[in-house]
Amino acid sequence: MRNYIMPILLACTLPALAVAQEKDSVTLRKLADEVLTHSTAYENLRILTKQIGGRLAGSPQMVKAEQWGVKALKAAGADTVYLQECMVPHWIRGAKEEARIISKRRDFIPPLEVLALGNSVGSGPDGVNALVLEVASFDDLEAKKDQVKGKIVFYNYHFNPTFIKTFYSYGDAVKYRGQGASRAAKYGAVAVIVRSMTHGANNFPHTGAMQYDSAYPKIPAVAIGLEDADRLSQRLKDDNSASVFLRTNCEMKKDTIGHNVIAELRGSKYPDQYITVGGHLDSWDVAEGAHDDGTGCVQSIEVLRAFKALGMKPEHTLRVVLFANEENGTRGGKKYAEVAKTRQEKHVFALESDAGGFTPRGFTTTMDAAHKAKMNSWKPLFAPYGIYDFDEPGGGVDVGQLNEAIGTPMAELSPDSQRYFDIHHAANDVFEAVNKRELELGAFGMAGFIYLVDQNF
Amino acid sequence: MRNYIMPILLACTLPALAVAQEKDSVTLRKLADEVLTHSTAYENLRILTKQIGGRLAGSPQMVKAEQWGVKALKAAGADTVYLQECMVPHWIRGAKEEARIISKRRDFIPPLEVLALGNSVGSGPDGVNALVLEVASFDDLEAKKDQVKGKIVFYNYHFNPTFIKTFYSYGDAVKYRGQGASRAAKYGAVAVIVRSMTHGANNFPHTGAMQYDSAYPKIPAVAIGLEDADRLSQRLKDDNSASVFLRTNCEMKKDTIGHNVIAELRGSKYPDQYITVGGHLDSWDVAEGAHDDGTGCVQSIEVLRAFKALGMKPEHTLRVVLFANEENGTRGGKKYAEVAKTRQEKHVFALESDAGGFTPRGFTTTMDAAHKAKMNSWKPLFAPYGIYDFDEPGGGVDVGQLNEAIGTPMAELSPDSQRYFDIHHAANDVFEAVNKRELELGAFGMAGFIYLVDQNF
Repeated sequence: MRNYIMPILLACTLPALAVAQEKDSVTLRKLADEVLTHSTAYENLRILTKQIGGRLAGSPQMVKAEQWGVKALKAAGADTVYLQECMVPHWIRGAKEEARIISKRRDFIPPLEVLALGNSVGSGPDGVNALVLEVASFDDLEAKKDQVKGKIVFYNYHFNPTFIKTFYSYGDAVKYRGQGASRAAKYGAVAVIVRSMTHGANNFPHTGAMQYDSAYPKIPAVAIGLEDADRLSQRLKDDNSASVFLRTNCEMKKDTIGHNVIAELRGSKYPDQYITVGGHLDSWDVAEGAHDDGTGCVQSIEVLRAFKALGMKPEHTLRVVLFANEENGTRGGKKYAEVAKTRQEKHVFALESDAGGFTPRGFTTTMDAAHKAKMNSWKPLFAPYGIYDFDEPGGGVDVGQLNEAIGTPMAELSPDSQRYFDIHHAANDVFEAVNKRELELGAFGMAGFIYLVDQNF
Repeated sequence: MRNYIMPILLACTLPALAVAQEKDSVTLRKLADEVLTHSTAYENLRILTKQIGGRLAGSPQMVKAEQWGVKALKAAGADTVYLQECMVPHWIRGAKEEARIISKRRDFIPPLEVLALGNSVGSGPDGVNALVLEVASFDDLEAKKDQVKGKIVFYNYHFNPTFIKTFYSYGDAVKYRGQGASRAAKYGAVAVIVRSMTHGANNFPHTGAMQYDSAYPKIPAVAIGLEDADRLSQRLKDDNSASVFLRTNCEMKKDTIGHNVIAELRGSKYPDQYITVGGHLDSWDVAEGAHDDGTGCVQSIEVLRAFKALGMKPEHTLRVVLFANEENGTRGGKKYAEVAKTRQEKHVFALESDAGGFTPRGFTTTMDAAHKAKMNSWKPLFAPYGIYDFDEPGGGVDVGQLNEAIGTPMAELSPDSQRYFDIHHAANDVFEAVNKRELELGAFGMAGFIYLVDQNF
């Protein structure tokens, strides 16, 4: 008889399921229409990027951005908006960096466009002038370790074009930015230059966080763009006595006060159970922080606005969080998780958007099999919107802290990744690089996902 | 016993299928690596757009583009390259259009940025100066038909933001560009102004083909951008005596000679059976024709280059066709189909790329159920590349002629559509709007599809 149970059960449950999916399908369509027709995300982003701009932790722009966040969340219709204090690192770039190739060949050599890596020490006012050792990888560094002493190590590791999702190329290459300085300092290097993590067919240097290993001296670290990296590499082939002069003026100051900006839409059924949706409010100083992560902030605000505009009352309390200091410390994400744990808050789910405001393709997730099975049943609901990819593990750096602390199931919006590393941490991450509809479709995807989580998790 | 046949058959065939898919999977990976590492598509596009630029049928640039096509196809490794002559329309824009609002209110009014619609008549040297009747739709026009006489009709139909794929918004709105002039002339209008078919948050006017109904007088037709459309609409509300002065200098001349540029890679097994892959070489005059359809041309060339570079010999003869005159006549596509029919050529399949060089998401197709079933079995092969959408009917304007004439199964690359109508037929359709990797992923998708068709159709 056993074989007959399933069909009978199916016969009973399928119509109920179909009715539920029909209702959900209608709600998603309403959310899409609302966001694609009345979204304030693009205009919010314009204000954040054009009127405030780069907003690194500890900077005056960080404070302005927090005030902007409070205002934007109130305008979106939040029940309450408040600041959650946390200490943040305070790294400053100082005066613009300088770098040039010094070569016995007497042709004109334009200066190198460099950016100090975040958290790195400065070179001091006299700068560094040294021969350059180019290495293709850490293996190559190890092979050449006897030649490192007194030199500038130039990591010329290429961003791998054969990964389809560019985040894999980033994961593959970013260790040279993060660990390159200390790995070279171990063998006596005086500074490092890192080829930028990008496919961008231009010369923008891409900054980003680096960390020192306390076992070795702290040496200056900078990034250069692809054209300069190729030019430097060629010069070293043509003239093996070529040196580089490098001066950076950055400095790590004492920690200072920053804030997560938090808004709530109170839950109708479970007001003390939380669903979090957020992006990070800080950005690198050299750009407008449009895709990283202005778009994640305004999309998260849009989720709340769309719910409110449509009169949709979430059963659980919806929390929009604009996280502090993702870029060089994750202190905002850590504080949010720490408070949630201390207060024994019940967190049902957390969603992040920090992979760019491009056309959404799906969500990366970290959750147990039962939640995953529920989520997979939503695939037909998202298919009409070109959102189909739910299979990749992931979550997001900030909500990842919550997952780590108290096991909250989590997801991150997964947009088309092709253009992200063209602008990531570089001066061209500006408002104009964001397409209004792509941004809005992402915001819709997040709103739809949150709606379904609220109903089903 | 019947119930046992399937499992046994499956047990025998599945390993064979699995082996075949494994081989295909390896080949697709090789194609992807080749295209993403060594593609010449982006550099080819740079030359076509920056050194030749806009290349409307009948223009001197059309001739240069044909010469470029021959050269690029030879460089890609074609066995033969030849020109296929066809007569093409010869419409010229003439001196730059002028338009301004004339209002009794004495504030400064900047001129309207207008573009004559392709194929439209000019206004004559004195221009047209008339009151303006704004209509929201053809229904609105019919309701106001008694007010049309002697006026300029302004079609202010909005591009619908709630369609997810923007081609649906285009399909919904393009009738105002195509038929608007004659529908208004029927009631005595002296000219028409059409709101551009775009979501673009800017003021670029978007041109494109229009057709006259010979039953009514031919009147001038122009497009304006969204900012000007909103400005004109507001002015008409503020001052119902406002008129518009319009001068266009365009003209339809006698048909002239153009060419399809055709290259072949000879089939190893079925040299007299053809698989076509192509885009159109012509573009509107006012832009560089980068996405429309420079990308389709260079992607088609890249398919041949990648096959050749990897030593892959197609079983059927692969024909790359750069079609003449898609924009305002489709004469190239018609000629290609006509010759194929006359010569009783056997065409196995035809693929087009004419929807922009953005990240590929799938293919739209027109083919019978048996072919479709084969194609659907390839879905797992394309999934790792983010190419998943094979369900939409379609094909492409140029290869559509072949389908119509002799029933050839066909497909069109279906890229992410969000940004296409931001630049379609407007001055901002330039090389810089194309992302190298997005372009290459599309070329890979086409190469993979062609490979599988060659093996299985």
